[in-house]
Amino acid sequence: MALPSINLDRLRTDLLTLGRIGHTDTGGVSRLAFTDPDMEARRWLMRRIEESGGRARLDGAGNVLGRWFEGNHPAVVLGSHIDSVVDGGLFDGTLGVLAGLECARAILDSELRPRRPLELVAFADEEGRFGGMFGVQAYCGMVTPDWLENAADPEGVKLSDAMRSHGLEPLQALNAARRPEDVFAFLELHIEQGPVLEAEKRRIGVVEGISGIFKWVVHLVGKANHAGTSPMHLRSDAFSGLASFAHEIPRILEEEGSPGSRLTIGKVELLPGHPHTVPGEAVFSLVGRDIEPDTLRGLADACTRVLGAIARRKGLHFEYRELSWLEPRRCHPDVIQAFVRAARGLDEDPLLMPSGAGHDTQFMAEFTRAGMIFVPSVGGVSHAPDELTHWADVEIGAQVLLRAVTEFLC
Amino acid sequence: MALPSINLDRLRTDLLTLGRIGHTDTGGVSRLAFTDPDMEARRWLMRRIEESGGRARLDGAGNVLGRWFEGNHPAVVLGSHIDSVVDGGLFDGTLGVLAGLECARAILDSELRPRRPLELVAFADEEGRFGGMFGVQAYCGMVTPDWLENAADPEGVKLSDAMRSHGLEPLQALNAARRPEDVFAFLELHIEQGPVLEAEKRRIGVVEGISGIFKWVVHLVGKANHAGTSPMHLRSDAFSGLASFAHEIPRILEEEGSPGSRLTIGKVELLPGHPHTVPGEAVFSLVGRDIEPDTLRGLADACTRVLGAIARRKGLHFEYRELSWLEPRRCHPDVIQAFVRAARGLDEDPLLMPSGAGHDTQFMAEFTRAGMIFVPSVGGVSHAPDELTHWADVEIGAQVLLRAVTEFLC
Repeated sequence: MALPSINLDRLRTDLLTLGRIGHTDTGGVSRLAFTDPDMEARRWLMRRIEESGGRARLDGAGNVLGRWFEGNHPAVVLGSHIDSVVDGGLFDGTLGVLAGLECARAILDSELRPRRPLELVAFADEEGRFGGMFGVQAYCGMVTPDWLENAADPEGVKLSDAMRSHGLEPLQALNAARRPEDVFAFLELHIEQGPVLEAEKRRIGVVEGISGIFKWVVHLVGKANHAGTSPMHLRSDAFSGLASFAHEIPRILEEEGSPGSRLTIGKVELLPGHPHTVPGEAVFSLVGRDIEPDTLRGLADACTRVLGAIARRKGLHFEYRELSWLEPRRCHPDVIQAFVRAARGLDEDPLLMPSGAGHDTQFMAEFTRAGMIFVPSVGGVSHAPDELTHWADVEIGAQVLLRAVTEFLC
Repeated sequence: MALPSINLDRLRTDLLTLGRIGHTDTGGVSRLAFTDPDMEARRWLMRRIEESGGRARLDGAGNVLGRWFEGNHPAVVLGSHIDSVVDGGLFDGTLGVLAGLECARAILDSELRPRRPLELVAFADEEGRFGGMFGVQAYCGMVTPDWLENAADPEGVKLSDAMRSHGLEPLQALNAARRPEDVFAFLELHIEQGPVLEAEKRRIGVVEGISGIFKWVVHLVGKANHAGTSPMHLRSDAFSGLASFAHEIPRILEEEGSPGSRLTIGKVELLPGHPHTVPGEAVFSLVGRDIEPDTLRGLADACTRVLGAIARRKGLHFEYRELSWLEPRRCHPDVIQAFVRAARGLDEDPLLMPSGAGHDTQFMAEFTRAGMIFVPSVGGVSHAPDELTHWADVEIGAQVLLRAVTEFLC
């Protein structure tokens, strides 16, 4: 029996058609969650599902659900999101949803008779207009009435008002929760949004886990002084403490980290911040990532040790506030193995890699056996109009997804 | 013949009385140049000069001039400034002016018959409401009609309007210029505004020179990337370049600098400046200081070499803009020696030191034989209401000034 196969023309047409909804002058798309373009895209997707012979519905959280091959077994679920950031690209999220739709069509076109239902989900507000990952958390039963009442976007628009303006009753989001026993597995295809696959010359990345993240704001406090009248040896220069710490980051990663570990200082403020004044205070962000809980903890502990030692050596006061700590989420070994087998069956040499960015899969991984694959992003670019994945990579990504989902369905 | 001696009570009374003009709620003073409190202080000083038996006048630049012991010889000039920053202290500038007045009174009280005239100057706008060091530059003939026309304060108030509002005709500032042959020497007493004398347990610092200064704004440009999806080895992190440079500053100073050299990074901005984004650009201030022109040049050259090497190693683009380059000014050896002899004659062990801050002396050093001494600032604090110099240190500073000026006068 011939294996089913992706029709790239059909998938490409869908991607380009969806890319016209919320199209911007710069060539990107703006489909922020629960805006008119976002809801128009959801209605368009429901029509496409129905045209393929599936059943489509919008759940209480605004997730689009498609179903094929109904039966009593738990469903194999494919999905991602179709909302976007402001002026985002054509592939982020949409690729996973439309490749999932194409998988359903490819199986319908084949002689396969799936044992399990196939479900497609386009989750609501993955990108975070109202905080992020709303739809998938509603699906997993993690949303509360409080959340529904209080969530608001940066302009102060409440989630509940945005939902009502599109005919959705916010409390119905509680009914979007699914039972784990009704889901067999979750598979997501996504663009990498980073430079690794391109640098490694691979077309398929199989995600081992979603990195955990700690986010700190760190204060190093010394003494502000006139830079002319203060000799170097009598200074308590907060920035020199920060520079010494930043200089130690490669060593910390070598000693405590894994190849996938990241430590980033992305924001720095010096006080008072005058060229002629020795900085009395340095306030900076420190974000750590790893996919192993113990490694993440080890990195955090090493950072506090090194910062403490530098502060003592330089006569500075050191404190930090943890703004968030998200535990890493491992992808399920069954899904990882299925993806690896599928890729190898298509003569691809997949790269096992962490996901440093957050994805719907990180919540699905707590709910069911879940996993995801990446295809290359040209130049590592994402969340921008020039986000691009070559069509050949779109095709191979969708084929690998199809092979893996077929294995779980049959 | 008994040597003349300072009357500390009289000097203290003057300092406290002047400190009430422009007094603020926080216990400091605000006498910005050409404001009502500044002009009131100038009129008060002229009365004090006349009460002592001197001749007082306001020159075209707003400098207060006092003269005693008139004759045909060039004058020995003492001075500093009595304008202040917003909410400054009671000693910055005023100490040098009022100690100079006290020197005149002490000599009048003695049996000394000076061979040369004594002149006292309270220079206008040393602190820089209109750019800084206006009065002393007018005195030295460095002010131009253009400058008088265009100088303005940060709120946009023009110097010319501020002068006119106090009955001063701006172009008359050109007539404030003096002939070098009419000035024999210039001596200034000032608070240190730094921590060195206190740390070294000395009461008198004899200034060898006013540091030259270079001020740069430096750009290191890499590539902004999502901090989650960009592995450490594929980043072009502009902040890591800055941190590496800051880490090298102690080595640069050891190899190229003198004990008085300073390199300061006081202001840093990262772009885009988000915790979750690898910084694509670091913009920072770099200020270097030394009292030797060759050393200052050597420091600047070393900084460009090190920044260039780091940029090449880390794949960053590096450029800098020189906002200013002020050559160091050496104090005159005759004045330095006179101050050292005077201090030792009073059983003090003076510290030869650079001035990292700018002072009126730096312009007088181009015009005549000039020099200055420092007395300790408690905690190194200045430009703040809690600026303090102990009265015992005020007294010894004024005594050293008196001894040195006596040597030049007689």
